[in-house]
Amino acid sequence: MPHRIGRYTLCLDSAPAILSYASAVGKKEGEGPLRHDFDKIYDDTSAGETSWEKAESLMLKDALSRAIEKSGYSPSSINYVFAGDLLNQGIASAYGLRDIGIPFFGLYGACSNMSLSLSLASVYIEANAAHLAACATSSHFCSAERQFRFPLEYGGQRAPTAQWTVTGAGAVILAQDGPGPFITKLTGGKIIDMGVRDMANMGAAMAPAAADTMKNFFDDTRAAPADYDMILTGDLGLVGSRLLIELLKKENLDISGQHEDCGVLMFDCENQGVNSGGSGCGCSASVLCSNILNRFRDGKLSKILFCATGALMSPTSSQQGESIPGIAHLVELCRERS
Amino acid sequence: MPHRIGRYTLCLDSAPAILSYASAVGKKEGEGPLRHDFDKIYDDTSAGETSWEKAESLMLKDALSRAIEKSGYSPSSINYVFAGDLLNQGIASAYGLRDIGIPFFGLYGACSNMSLSLSLASVYIEANAAHLAACATSSHFCSAERQFRFPLEYGGQRAPTAQWTVTGAGAVILAQDGPGPFITKLTGGKIIDMGVRDMANMGAAMAPAAADTMKNFFDDTRAAPADYDMILTGDLGLVGSRLLIELLKKENLDISGQHEDCGVLMFDCENQGVNSGGSGCGCSASVLCSNILNRFRDGKLSKILFCATGALMSPTSSQQGESIPGIAHLVELCRERS
Repeated sequence: MPHRIGRYTLCLDSAPAILSYASAVGKKEGEGPLRHDFDKIYDDTSAGETSWEKAESLMLKDALSRAIEKSGYSPSSINYVFAGDLLNQGIASAYGLRDIGIPFFGLYGACSNMSLSLSLASVYIEANAAHLAACATSSHFCSAERQFRFPLEYGGQRAPTAQWTVTGAGAVILAQDGPGPFITKLTGGKIIDMGVRDMANMGAAMAPAAADTMKNFFDDTRAAPADYDMILTGDLGLVGSRLLIELLKKENLDISGQHEDCGVLMFDCENQGVNSGGSGCGCSASVLCSNILNRFRDGKLSKILFCATGALMSPTSSQQGESIPGIAHLVELCRERS
Repeated sequence: MPHRIGRYTLCLDSAPAILSYASAVGKKEGEGPLRHDFDKIYDDTSAGETSWEKAESLMLKDALSRAIEKSGYSPSSINYVFAGDLLNQGIASAYGLRDIGIPFFGLYGACSNMSLSLSLASVYIEANAAHLAACATSSHFCSAERQFRFPLEYGGQRAPTAQWTVTGAGAVILAQDGPGPFITKLTGGKIIDMGVRDMANMGAAMAPAAADTMKNFFDDTRAAPADYDMILTGDLGLVGSRLLIELLKKENLDISGQHEDCGVLMFDCENQGVNSGGSGCGCSASVLCSNILNRFRDGKLSKILFCATGALMSPTSSQQGESIPGIAHLVELCRERS
C-alpha cells in the first residue's frame, strides 16, 4: 500500500517495476548524442505517412508496440494504457492506439506527460488495480510547429530562447515485478504561473513549476540533492535549466551538481541549430526510454529524480493575452527496492 | 484493496464515497427540465468575462469551489484534482484551476471526462494514495462551437443528428468516507472506431464505444441490466441512444428499460432547439452533479451505471479524412456499501 509523507509526496511501498521500455525518434534526433540508444530512428519526418499527425501516431504506436514486445506479454495482457500528446484533442495518442485493444486513459500534461503517465500508472500497479500498465507519449516537430507557431513553409526566425520540439515517442510497461528500475516516490505538481507570456521561452515558463515540485519533494522527504545520481528535468532547455538552478538556490537547494535536462541531452545544442534545446513530451519520453533507462540497466545509475515539465497554454490563451502556466510531476526511480 | 474481475472490470472493495458535488451551468441549461437541480445558473454566456474560454474556466472553478465548500474541507486538504475539458490543450481546466493550489492531473477523454476522472480518482482513494480527491470538467457551447465547427457569427444550419454543446461544469469530491453514493466498480473503455466520419453525428460515433464497455462490464460481472435503477450514458443524444440500445440487443442485452442519457435529460429537446440533445463533457458532469446525485440523496436511486462517452477526433483529423474514434468509461454507483 502507498503512504503519504508530508503534504505532497506519495511513497510506493511495493515499488512498481519498469518491466520494459522503448523509443522511436526522427532523423535529427537520430543524429544527436543519444543516437546509439534509440530503438528506432525514422529517416524522414513523415515516416511514410500522408501527414505529420499520422507520422506522430505511427511513432507512438511503434514505441508502445516495441515496449510491449520486449515485456514478453501480449497487448491483451496490458490492463490500461495511460497516454497523451501535444496535439489538439490528443489525436496522436487516440489514432495511434485505436487498434491496440487496450483500455485507454487519455492524459494532457503538455510536456509533463511522461511523468504524469508514470505517476498514475504506478499507483494503479501499486494498488493492484492493474497487473500491467503502459505509459506512452509523443511529439513531432512538424505537427507541433504548425499547431503552436507558424506554418513550416513560412520559415520564421527562431528566438535564442526557443526550443526545438522533438520528433519522437517513448513507452514504458510497468508491472509488479521486473528488472526495474523501480518507482518508489511520486510528487504531484501544482499549476504554477509566474506571469511569463513569451511563447518563445517555454523554459522560463516551466522552470518555476519544476522548482515548486522539487522543493515540495525535498521538504516532504527531507532528502538532499546529493542523495541522487541525477535530477532530470523534461525539457527546460539551456535557459530554463539555469533558471531552475537559480530558483532552487533561493530555497537553499543546490541541484547544480546533479541536474540534467532531457532537452539538453537530446541534441548537440550548439551544432544542431536547436537554440535552447529540445522540447515536447516526446523529448523527455524518448530520452528516458533510451539513454536513461539503459544507464540503469548497465549499472551506471542507481537513484534519480525524473521531473518532466509542461506548459499548459494554447495558441488561443496566448492570443487572449494570458500568461503561460507551468506544471511538473516528479517520479523517483531506484535501481534497487530498498 | 481493489480486485479485478473478468478482463476489464475493477471492484473497489472499500467503495470510495462521493463526499460532495456541485454544478454550474449557462442560461439555456437553466431553462431546461433540470433547472431546479443546479447550484448556479449563469445568466449570460460570457459570465462577465472577456472571452468564452475564460467564462468556461470560471464555471469550472465555480463548480469545484462549491463542491469543496460543501465538503467542509479547505482546498489545501484536497490531495489531487483530476480535471479536463474539450478545449485545445485543456485550457479551461488549466486556467480555471491555476490559482487553486492543488496538485493537478490533466485528463483528456473528450466528453467521457467525468467518468474518466471518477475512475482515476476513485482508484487513488481506494488505494489510500489520496485522502481527498476532486474531479471536475466543463464545456461551453460558444468556445466549443468556434473551435470544432464554425464561428458563431456564421449562423450555420445544424443537422437533425447534431447535438448542442452544454455550457456547464460539474465537480465531485471523493473521500474514503462520506454520505455517498459509493463507487463500487469501474470498467475502463477501449478506443472503438466503427468508421463514422460525420462530425454532425457524434452520437453514432460514440454509441459503439458505450456498447463495447457495457458488454465488457456485463460479461465480467454477470450482472443484468435489470439489476440497476438506471444505466446512464453521457451524451449520446436521441440518435446515439437508439443506436446503443440496438447494438446491445444484438449482444442479448436489453437496456431499454433502464437507459437514460444526460444529453436527453438536460434539455427539452423538442422545444429548446437542440436537435438530438446536449453534448460536451460539461453535459454529463453537470447532470450527474445535480439531478442524478440529488436523486441518490433523496433516496430515489440506489444503484446505477454511469458511462460517459467521448469522441476522440479533432478538426485536424477530420479534415485529414479520418473517422471518429469513440471511448466510454463506466462507473458503478451504489447508495449503500454492500
